[in-house]
Amino acid sequence: MFTGSVQKALNTLETQLGRAVVITDPVEVANAALDGRGRRQGRAIALVRPGSTEDVVTVLKVATQHQLIVITQGGNTSNVGGATPEPNAPDEEAERTLILQLSRMNRILEVDPINNTMRVEAGVILQDAQDAAAKVGRLLALSLAAEGSCQMGGVIATNAGGVHVLRYGMARRQVLGLKVVTATGEVLDLMRGLRKDNAGYSLKDLFVGSEGTLGIITEAILTIEPMPRAIVSAWVTPASLDHVEPLFEALETACGPGLTAFELIGRAPLASLEAITGLTPPIEVADWQVLLDLSDWQLDTAEVAQRLEEILTPLLEQGIITNGAVTYDESDREAFWQCRETIPSAVKRQGGNVKHDISVPRSQLTTFITDTVEALQNAFPGVEPSIFGHFGDGNLHFNVGPGAVAFPHEEAIHRIVHDRVLAVGGSIAAEHGVGSLKTDELARTKSPEELAAFRALKLAFDPDNRLNPGRMIRL
Amino acid sequence: MFTGSVQKALNTLETQLGRAVVITDPVEVANAALDGRGRRQGRAIALVRPGSTEDVVTVLKVATQHQLIVITQGGNTSNVGGATPEPNAPDEEAERTLILQLSRMNRILEVDPINNTMRVEAGVILQDAQDAAAKVGRLLALSLAAEGSCQMGGVIATNAGGVHVLRYGMARRQVLGLKVVTATGEVLDLMRGLRKDNAGYSLKDLFVGSEGTLGIITEAILTIEPMPRAIVSAWVTPASLDHVEPLFEALETACGPGLTAFELIGRAPLASLEAITGLTPPIEVADWQVLLDLSDWQLDTAEVAQRLEEILTPLLEQGIITNGAVTYDESDREAFWQCRETIPSAVKRQGGNVKHDISVPRSQLTTFITDTVEALQNAFPGVEPSIFGHFGDGNLHFNVGPGAVAFPHEEAIHRIVHDRVLAVGGSIAAEHGVGSLKTDELARTKSPEELAAFRALKLAFDPDNRLNPGRMIRL
Repeated sequence: MFTGSVQKALNTLETQLGRAVVITDPVEVANAALDGRGRRQGRAIALVRPGSTEDVVTVLKVATQHQLIVITQGGNTSNVGGATPEPNAPDEEAERTLILQLSRMNRILEVDPINNTMRVEAGVILQDAQDAAAKVGRLLALSLAAEGSCQMGGVIATNAGGVHVLRYGMARRQVLGLKVVTATGEVLDLMRGLRKDNAGYSLKDLFVGSEGTLGIITEAILTIEPMPRAIVSAWVTPASLDHVEPLFEALETACGPGLTAFELIGRAPLASLEAITGLTPPIEVADWQVLLDLSDWQLDTAEVAQRLEEILTPLLEQGIITNGAVTYDESDREAFWQCRETIPSAVKRQGGNVKHDISVPRSQLTTFITDTVEALQNAFPGVEPSIFGHFGDGNLHFNVGPGAVAFPHEEAIHRIVHDRVLAVGGSIAAEHGVGSLKTDELARTKSPEELAAFRALKLAFDPDNRLNPGRMIRL
Repeated sequence: MFTGSVQKALNTLETQLGRAVVITDPVEVANAALDGRGRRQGRAIALVRPGSTEDVVTVLKVATQHQLIVITQGGNTSNVGGATPEPNAPDEEAERTLILQLSRMNRILEVDPINNTMRVEAGVILQDAQDAAAKVGRLLALSLAAEGSCQMGGVIATNAGGVHVLRYGMARRQVLGLKVVTATGEVLDLMRGLRKDNAGYSLKDLFVGSEGTLGIITEAILTIEPMPRAIVSAWVTPASLDHVEPLFEALETACGPGLTAFELIGRAPLASLEAITGLTPPIEVADWQVLLDLSDWQLDTAEVAQRLEEILTPLLEQGIITNGAVTYDESDREAFWQCRETIPSAVKRQGGNVKHDISVPRSQLTTFITDTVEALQNAFPGVEPSIFGHFGDGNLHFNVGPGAVAFPHEEAIHRIVHDRVLAVGGSIAAEHGVGSLKTDELARTKSPEELAAFRALKLAFDPDNRLNPGRMIRL
């Protein structure tokens, strides 16, 4: 079935790592080669499940010797086909592709509540890492809808964002150190738990967000934070889309870093949510709503809730918001956030839509939404944008449904949305990464100089193009 | 005087940029080739003072054609000889070296108080950028002793730190976009004012901190922050070095991101300060003191001062601190901080000392100080470490004086300090960069794999080794 060299490579891996680590059962391999959205079936010859950095070194050394392609996979929750092989890969590539799953490397190695850092293996599930930090009274601030299944290696390799970026930044800001296995199986040990380190080029910042194309992250040191004493949530209705920015500004001015989340949610995603799950928000649905968190490190929850009421009341009087609910009750807070976090899966179960993960300067955000919705509805009558996301970061999940109407026009819809994003200086891949789905769009929209720099980096670290080839930049 | 090719290059530059931009007067060139500490006299053939990115492109294109070396200079405030030519450069190199001064490119191009960003040219002085942000009620949080003369290009190219890193991060975190001219004179336009952007490798994060060795930064987009409503300062005496960590933890737990500065200051730097300037701190000098800021975005200064008193009083009762002064009076606050900020210049005027800019995990910091002071005093009786710095970030300016005793043993003292830093997982270049002074020490102390990665990056962006050659990594 396999060419001689590939079969030899698999035999060597089995001998060196054990039979349980190297899986060639076609069903298991095919499952691992299907992306998390269930839309892209790739092919591979084997699934390899290393238990340590040393195992990964072995895999990469054998892969180098036999020119195998390595697709690295964490929780397989990518929205952009970044963790599975290309569906359209030619046979020649598919027949030398390994999927490297890091889920067995799931040890939390250390939590240091004085340095405020934790050391984890790449296969640790985000929620488990959050729990380990919470056990010593610290906050691992990374938080996103897939946290119950996504793994730290993938979170870091894609520079994931989420709902707390506003205050705590994306994954890159929260990663202090990394251990990386290079394309040729060398260990690059950058495991330093330092908040200031200018000793050389910042390799760490380069590998974060490189999506498995420059090296394989096997361990990380993360920064953790003092746990807020109180977190209070509010679900409020801005008078219109134009009132969202004044609302944000008023809250940010009054609260500074205490404003730890500010999510904008349109009417359409809440309609999907109710239709599929029966969940409804705490107050009447309007065209736009905002879900926000206010954190404090000294006051108790009742005091923070009172403070938030004092900020919101004048905004109600001024007509900036028309309705709102504030809660510090933990189960109410969970219910507020469940509405927000369940949107992606509800939309998926409703038939999906054409997805965009975009960011623009916040000063352009409301105009961008209005203009782009109008352009889409003119071009394709019957489409309905379903918009929600991280207003405070200028990042929206600008999705276009319903699937039956939108999917036939997928490319044209991407073009309309992305061209408007780029016209106002935005990004077509804000927090989900480039993956397989956006590599061509990057090639279309980036400057020749920036593409040349991407190419130079890829060639510097993976000249044989064997790590996640065809993603980020095609050689 | 110059070889034919170099003379031709200078003629071309004069023709294309104008005579005032290309300076060959030997005194002016020599002044520009002397480092800010006055210890390292380099050589160059000319000083070029471009007025725009297009001018920089012209310089780099001519430099490429004639294989000239380009040393980029901002405010020339480097502590590590990073902004001036190598004193020991061979004639062959010196005779084709240009110094590129960006100080004419000093325009603040835009301040956007909605997106909370500002756009500046590389030659803008940090303090001018701070002032421009303050004018629209925003905080540019970068703040360091040289802010009155250092320029944004240098601040960014060295990933500068300073007194607010604890809350706001280093320069890298505050840079959203860059314009970079490459070694061959291409413009890499990365001027995006986005807080989330995963569209490709993060070139921006690579150029920040690359010290002019990979490209020349000509413009930047910086993030600015809501201005705190109140900032209160305290000068407190921990009972001993071992009590500094509990003090820090108590404050960070109670204040979270409100704790915006936490500086540790030893006895020796304050003795230098008083001897040279007559300045004395607000309370009696002890072996160790802490200067800290508490910021708040909602409460007024009197309320914040009261809150800080409420936090400090139990610490006094528990014996963690033995003395302290809290103030929200603006002129008192300035006096507190003047004591801290004047230390470097006082020490310099007193004859200097052997400098180290190190960081270690904060959980190792106090043990590191005790052990290293002991080792130094055993090895070289009469030396006196003069220690101050950013305790909250694990970063100390661990200087060893007096100059007359320490300078003769400079290399051996570096070795003692740096080996102890590395033994606890620290960095020998925390916030001042590598520059000319630490390139060899980096080569001695980094792993072969990390050095190979540095080399690969340098070769990818400057294969002819003409941008700040011999810094970061020797080719």
